[in-house]
Amino acid sequence: MQRNFQHGGQVYDATGQANFFMDFSANINPLGLPDSVRRTILENFEGVVNYPDPNATELKNILAARYEIPQKNLVLLNGAAEFFYLYCNVERPKKILIPVPSFSEYERAAWAIGADVEYFFLREEDEFIFDEKKFFEKVTAEKFDCVIIGRPNNPTGNLISVDAVKKISEVVNVVVDESFIDFLPIESARAAVNKKISVVQSLTKIFAIPGLRLGFAVVDEILAERLNFAKDVWNVNFLAQKAGVAALADEKFLHSTRLWLDEEKKYFTARLRELPEVKVFEPTVNFVLIKFSSSDVANFVVEKLRAEKILVRSCGNFVGLDERFLRLAIKRRHENNFLIDAMKNFLP
Amino acid sequence: MQRNFQHGGQVYDATGQANFFMDFSANINPLGLPDSVRRTILENFEGVVNYPDPNATELKNILAARYEIPQKNLVLLNGAAEFFYLYCNVERPKKILIPVPSFSEYERAAWAIGADVEYFFLREEDEFIFDEKKFFEKVTAEKFDCVIIGRPNNPTGNLISVDAVKKISEVVNVVVDESFIDFLPIESARAAVNKKISVVQSLTKIFAIPGLRLGFAVVDEILAERLNFAKDVWNVNFLAQKAGVAALADEKFLHSTRLWLDEEKKYFTARLRELPEVKVFEPTVNFVLIKFSSSDVANFVVEKLRAEKILVRSCGNFVGLDERFLRLAIKRRHENNFLIDAMKNFLP
Repeated sequence: MQRNFQHGGQVYDATGQANFFMDFSANINPLGLPDSVRRTILENFEGVVNYPDPNATELKNILAARYEIPQKNLVLLNGAAEFFYLYCNVERPKKILIPVPSFSEYERAAWAIGADVEYFFLREEDEFIFDEKKFFEKVTAEKFDCVIIGRPNNPTGNLISVDAVKKISEVVNVVVDESFIDFLPIESARAAVNKKISVVQSLTKIFAIPGLRLGFAVVDEILAERLNFAKDVWNVNFLAQKAGVAALADEKFLHSTRLWLDEEKKYFTARLRELPEVKVFEPTVNFVLIKFSSSDVANFVVEKLRAEKILVRSCGNFVGLDERFLRLAIKRRHENNFLIDAMKNFLP
Repeated sequence: MQRNFQHGGQVYDATGQANFFMDFSANINPLGLPDSVRRTILENFEGVVNYPDPNATELKNILAARYEIPQKNLVLLNGAAEFFYLYCNVERPKKILIPVPSFSEYERAAWAIGADVEYFFLREEDEFIFDEKKFFEKVTAEKFDCVIIGRPNNPTGNLISVDAVKKISEVVNVVVDESFIDFLPIESARAAVNKKISVVQSLTKIFAIPGLRLGFAVVDEILAERLNFAKDVWNVNFLAQKAGVAALADEKFLHSTRLWLDEEKKYFTARLRELPEVKVFEPTVNFVLIKFSSSDVANFVVEKLRAEKILVRSCGNFVGLDERFLRLAIKRRHENNFLIDAMKNFLP
């Protein structure tokens, strides 16, 4: 437990109050709380005097329809992160391979059950692009109980193909974390789910409700039964269920989000490239990995920004990265400009 | 997985909509959502766009102060039920003894990790009073990895003494479920927590927020570290944290609750005893176990009441009880009268 598992989004002060920050450290949809969700919270919050629906009928119906998933394959989650703990508790893998740098909860969940974690290093020289051939060789040559792959991967943004997932699953169980997939109109690995492929998805990033906690997994039917039996039936709270139902019906919000990202991703990366001595890795979804020439410069930037009430994510505690790397959420135009202008001000 | 683990509080219809029921089947404080909690939800819900505070600083501070618990002994829970799964996942007990009838999640969590569950039957002839001597003999004669005891026990209401908990803990690990303890101004087992005694408490019953999910456990410091490491840091959602802080500061609400219960417990049991062929077991907190002369009569009552939009809890799926038993939440005077009058109407 020597590793530091701290994440982005640390907006709380020493007294536990949320302070105002322009928060580029958590990868949340900057369009903010959808009006549909705001309305449903206001209309339904008195319903917290009842237990959540243990069958989550409304939420399951809309998830099944929206993502074309049989309900028997669904596991509802108190946030996507819950999945890794639940999966490890039920499957008890002994040896896990994780391409890194990646989301540290995969490893934390593995450690929590005493599993051995091995890293497959994505290389900066390759722009952190996933080397499917080498990875396949690795899982073929050695025995792993499962691999956990971000798709796209956080914080590098690289996106493994569904075909590669299928190929890897011929030799090892694959958990695919598609927590950011809805930001793009791309193919999901959901349709490939079988006994060897499990897919987990967050609804908190795309719908800007991380405080409510909501995610789901699509897994083999038998595994779904086992996972559902390994947790209590009320793990997804009433307001998260209601918010999910409202948000998933809100096609306009999803559409606006994708329009925003398509445009802002190009703008933000172009402006980031104006900065001196900054390497910008090509993003796929709503965050960008950048690298400064030295840790000193990067840490200086983090501190200067924090003093101006801007949070960015130092990547010092990502295995395979170091303090030279920062991860930046892509936000709205005026916020992105504010960040770049602030950095320009104090960078040489 | 043949057992039926359905609980009370099934207010949702086939479409997943919460319908109006006068709900005596879930043991929720009938004073309803505290005004302090309503206000905090309305003031704070926009904050769900941030992750919950992973340190839960505000909530931990007030829990530590209110219950005189060192923070290092605290585990925050997405509802008290989460504890049994977390504990089983981390401690991996092989053989568990549970006094029954009791809350079925103890057993479900044990089953989920493949533990053997043995029952210690509380006897109706003894008014379901816990036989401390016999229980001690049992755990001394046989080897169990832990025992899980409701204090007071749901649905029977019997209350084991803290001294008995301490004595039992001399020979076996004890998990004490004090989910209803705050309804009474009585001694908690919290002060006795050590390597062998863990205490779990719900905040959703007393503060009428089961839909938000909130509980906590007080456990040995090392175990707290292990339990906290075996779950993600965001398991308690932002609004549950805020609601908990507001509710725990609301001494007036707690006071009103205890005044209400003190009076209504006597009134409700007295009126229940007016019913023909009904045996009433003495309650401790906000629910009463009753028994009809036959399953037919009891099931008839359940169905007739449901037709009048009144829910009660049939105890057919409690090990150690059968369909002759019903559990009734104690509600407000006019609701209690409504229930009794309805039953009087169609009972012979």
